[in-house]
Amino acid sequence: MKTISTSKSHGGIQGVYAHASAACACDMTFAVFVPPQAKDGPVPVLWYLSGLTCTHANVMDKGEYRRLAAELGLMIVCPDTSPRGEGIADEKDNWQFGSGAGFYVDATEAPFAKNYLMYSYVTEELPALIAANFPADMSRQAITGHSMGGHGALTIALKHPERFKSCSAFAPIAQPSTAGWSKPALEKYLGSDEAAWRAYDTTLLIEDGKRFPEFLVDQGSSDSFLDEGLRPWLLEEACTKSGIGLTLRMQDGYDHSYNFISTFMDDHLRWHAARLG
Amino acid sequence: MKTISTSKSHGGIQGVYAHASAACACDMTFAVFVPPQAKDGPVPVLWYLSGLTCTHANVMDKGEYRRLAAELGLMIVCPDTSPRGEGIADEKDNWQFGSGAGFYVDATEAPFAKNYLMYSYVTEELPALIAANFPADMSRQAITGHSMGGHGALTIALKHPERFKSCSAFAPIAQPSTAGWSKPALEKYLGSDEAAWRAYDTTLLIEDGKRFPEFLVDQGSSDSFLDEGLRPWLLEEACTKSGIGLTLRMQDGYDHSYNFISTFMDDHLRWHAARLG
Repeated sequence: MKTISTSKSHGGIQGVYAHASAACACDMTFAVFVPPQAKDGPVPVLWYLSGLTCTHANVMDKGEYRRLAAELGLMIVCPDTSPRGEGIADEKDNWQFGSGAGFYVDATEAPFAKNYLMYSYVTEELPALIAANFPADMSRQAITGHSMGGHGALTIALKHPERFKSCSAFAPIAQPSTAGWSKPALEKYLGSDEAAWRAYDTTLLIEDGKRFPEFLVDQGSSDSFLDEGLRPWLLEEACTKSGIGLTLRMQDGYDHSYNFISTFMDDHLRWHAARLG
Repeated sequence: MKTISTSKSHGGIQGVYAHASAACACDMTFAVFVPPQAKDGPVPVLWYLSGLTCTHANVMDKGEYRRLAAELGLMIVCPDTSPRGEGIADEKDNWQFGSGAGFYVDATEAPFAKNYLMYSYVTEELPALIAANFPADMSRQAITGHSMGGHGALTIALKHPERFKSCSAFAPIAQPSTAGWSKPALEKYLGSDEAAWRAYDTTLLIEDGKRFPEFLVDQGSSDSFLDEGLRPWLLEEACTKSGIGLTLRMQDGYDHSYNFISTFMDDHLRWHAARLG
């Protein structure tokens, strides 16, 4: 692991790091905020998964999580959203597939299966790296994310309810297997048999019996992706049917940007801190 | 004036606007955050002047001012740092002069005098535009800035003590006429007669009798520009000699980045809000 940069912020350290990833067969970059409480021992970890087109840097720059994370004693880990670099299969000019659009799946189709193993990367490889190199209490983990990253957070929590004390999402893609900006990606990563897509679809995972105690979801009412891409009512329906607790808050007048995320970041951090103990 | 974008944030509106500037003889872009209190009438205005290489966007993205500005009811105005565009004299590859480096002076030397009138722009033209187009209480204004913008805030406050209720700065350039990264710029903008530079140098303005009641200045101890470029002790000396109140806080371990700015943004907003009434 290589340190790219560190910078003191709100009494903690905002760092950027890179490492040779086995899962993605390329160098991967990620950001970690270590709160001041880490001086006294391991601190709980909140994973933040970013949305389409983002790297680790967008939420680090615009998410406004450090002030309260430093107060609450939370480590914030922000992975990249896909493998990147020369020799990695990509579709230039398509922001919904390839670079910046890994969708947190393990691709099985050539040529993407060589690098696009973002599910394994964020659930296995990067957690092991964090545990080995940072003052993280891995018995206290939580997960959140935005849009594609909200889909990532919800699906990963549903498949690892024992690992995460809490899960929330900002404007998540509720049902990626039927949304226009994600269905083609799932097909290219996972093949045309839609049965394979179910493992990466929040509403279908719930339909197939996966459970998590409760979710906090914020959604802007003026989000231009609301009706076609995000559709929180599908999540609401799935949670109602399955008895999963859902706090779904429609936020009047908010869009899909980091202005929306940063406005409600404090609420999400407090939600997780309360459940991380 | 043209609206480039608006986005709801913390109950207020973060907007980006452009207009044809007479002072700069080009289109200029700026950012304004209007807090929710503006629904009930004009609100006080805090000007934020940015540092070298920045546009209006850097502090808008990374400054983390909206949460508390929305709570305190402050409008935040963030101008660009120079004229920009085709046909405007510039030195490509020089980040300390030209584009992104207007130093808040009115250039008198050709060819820069045609566009680089940033002092007039931020003290006259843009305030008139703000007064005409936003719910701003222009009888309650305050000013702050970072690095080159800290120099801008201090010099402008010293020359307009009647206009500004308060002034603060993040890591300001205390004496630009003798610092390596600003002296060549002053010479190119204002000519070789150093007498003309004094109107744009905080310590020399104070030496020449300009006064302001008090300044709040934060400075990171790990700022790589501290010893050569910023030198807050020169400001301290000038304030001590002249009886200007100076709250100078050396912040242990902080660098020159927006992580430093955003960490202490809350303190500055509260400082200004208390003095804006």
